[in-house]
Amino acid sequence: MRESQAQHPPWGDFMCVPPEEGVRVFQTTGTTGIPVKVMLNKMDWTVHFYEQFMHFMCGYGIKPSDILFVPFGYSLYIAWWGFQAALEQAGVMIVPGGAQSSQDRIKNIFEWGATVVCGTPTYLLHLGETGLRMGMPLAGSKVKIVVAAGEPGANVRATKLAIQELWGAKCYDDIGSSEISNFGFECIVQKGTHVIESMFYAECLDPDTLKPVAPGEVGELVLSNLCTETMPLLRYRIKDLVRFNFDRCECGRTFLRLDGGILGRSDDMFQFAGVNIFPSAIENLIRQVPEFSNEYQIVIPKFGSGKHIRIRVEPASSEITKEGMTQAVKGFIENFKYRITVTPDVEIAEMGELPRFELKAKRLIRED
Amino acid sequence: MRESQAQHPPWGDFMCVPPEEGVRVFQTTGTTGIPVKVMLNKMDWTVHFYEQFMHFMCGYGIKPSDILFVPFGYSLYIAWWGFQAALEQAGVMIVPGGAQSSQDRIKNIFEWGATVVCGTPTYLLHLGETGLRMGMPLAGSKVKIVVAAGEPGANVRATKLAIQELWGAKCYDDIGSSEISNFGFECIVQKGTHVIESMFYAECLDPDTLKPVAPGEVGELVLSNLCTETMPLLRYRIKDLVRFNFDRCECGRTFLRLDGGILGRSDDMFQFAGVNIFPSAIENLIRQVPEFSNEYQIVIPKFGSGKHIRIRVEPASSEITKEGMTQAVKGFIENFKYRITVTPDVEIAEMGELPRFELKAKRLIRED
Repeated sequence: MRESQAQHPPWGDFMCVPPEEGVRVFQTTGTTGIPVKVMLNKMDWTVHFYEQFMHFMCGYGIKPSDILFVPFGYSLYIAWWGFQAALEQAGVMIVPGGAQSSQDRIKNIFEWGATVVCGTPTYLLHLGETGLRMGMPLAGSKVKIVVAAGEPGANVRATKLAIQELWGAKCYDDIGSSEISNFGFECIVQKGTHVIESMFYAECLDPDTLKPVAPGEVGELVLSNLCTETMPLLRYRIKDLVRFNFDRCECGRTFLRLDGGILGRSDDMFQFAGVNIFPSAIENLIRQVPEFSNEYQIVIPKFGSGKHIRIRVEPASSEITKEGMTQAVKGFIENFKYRITVTPDVEIAEMGELPRFELKAKRLIRED
Repeated sequence: MRESQAQHPPWGDFMCVPPEEGVRVFQTTGTTGIPVKVMLNKMDWTVHFYEQFMHFMCGYGIKPSDILFVPFGYSLYIAWWGFQAALEQAGVMIVPGGAQSSQDRIKNIFEWGATVVCGTPTYLLHLGETGLRMGMPLAGSKVKIVVAAGEPGANVRATKLAIQELWGAKCYDDIGSSEISNFGFECIVQKGTHVIESMFYAECLDPDTLKPVAPGEVGELVLSNLCTETMPLLRYRIKDLVRFNFDRCECGRTFLRLDGGILGRSDDMFQFAGVNIFPSAIENLIRQVPEFSNEYQIVIPKFGSGKHIRIRVEPASSEITKEGMTQAVKGFIENFKYRITVTPDVEIAEMGELPRFELKAKRLIRED
């Protein structure tokens, strides 16, 4: 898709409607350098998205009388635009929380009597902890459902429990991707993710042989979109590892369940602050800066710590002045923010200080 | 309305539908201390707002093939939520510009080929000047229409011309209020604001006697909403001064035109960064801080200077330590940001330094 859009800008050769029909655009956070541009026509945005999110809404037990607070930046990334628009159409009251500090968002959650809040696991933990520090614990608010997306956190048991305790609310995992849209939701049984099989055809394949694996075995999820007009995708490799369960769920649904949700990635992508990040994309940005050597480290702080990603770089040569490095770092941070959409902290190491690797490099460090 | 909501929280006693029917909420920027909460049901939000903004869209000459970039914070204030939602429904492609720096917004205006951009006059000037500084003049973009709202700038000839020159585009004034919604738009003739008379009944009255004034004479605009289910308002005094012209406009419309748009205010409210601010609201916040004396000055920078509002305060007594004042200022700024939603700069004057007034105080200073 990325290549097609590079060769046939801006939309590539896989769109099935002309750009004049587009009413909403987004870009992916799968930042391998250049994001994929996503377009939706009116039918996809107002009818198909609505239908998808009604499965989510019923899955989580949200009712038209609920009040959804959306603590979101409303940028070019798809979440929570679609969720908000669909729930609004379904009669849920939306309280928009753009351009507000976390403190103000907490005040607004109380002031407007929100009953549902959405966010990345990282941000939900951060809001929860901020509320405690402010003496306004969110467990004391009317919120009874929090919906988490953008990172694997909400299906990681410890993270889910931490969020649920901070908020005094049930936490549901919401999955999907900008490219293929919103194919799965966690039900109130909280044992995994149902695929909306009326709108998506799902396969579970061995990532190497691309042969189907048996239910209960881990494989790569491959999806075909049965419902999209603008950019339908057939046998799309979403790169997520899953385990199929075709048994009837205790919630009563017969839709296929991905036990335990998304179990991991079949590639090296990681997620931070709701953004999908490929280390290769960061490498690409680093290697565009002549002042930096080819060595680097990416340090990912733990969920909810409120810390930035840290990028450690070295000067490319001893000729580079301190001012030259400062300027280069400044430009790099600007470019990182524009392309990867999160703000990094950059540390300048001494020349030769960063570890070198003879075989496969390990430059990605996860902090506990 | 404010009193009614204070007495009957949260919605007051003037709503005509129950809160369960609300799908969107906003709050006014008319910050006399506590904002008014505004609710819209699905009919008002998706049907009536759509109809209102279709008059705007046709008035400005926007077509479904246009691409609207919205450089907006997507907070609790109504603009540009309705404009965006209605234009999206009309088939215009929306590129959301929340949570981005001005530099990134300029890059995105070019990258996505935006043809229409909206903003406050202040912000449009700021973006225009930022583009020049970046070597990406917006006059070189595909933008051909800019829509300005939230401040009187776009009907002030010098400001309109400055915006048009920076953007190489036509600049149209978009008026309305959170309370009564979007009653008027400037047409391509650019001589004033048409009232959507099919949806609003307008009167022009003497602000003191409340008797009608003749066409061509300045009076206060009083509006009755003929179209709203959630909170219809009858004979609502919007506090704007206007001049009626019932002649057929050169654009062909027979809708009443307010010649020259909004000519001023019948009260002391001023507008800054798209926010309606009453000096009395600032006074109210200042007087909540025991460390501050009762004297203050409000310095409003000129349009597009990129400067903050400056609030000058004095210590209430010589007993107050420097640390005490610093803490008080910090709390005041937090409260100001939450209540008035713009960030002020606060200067601490020496005790007795600020001017005292024997008669009517002049504490509001506009910089040229």
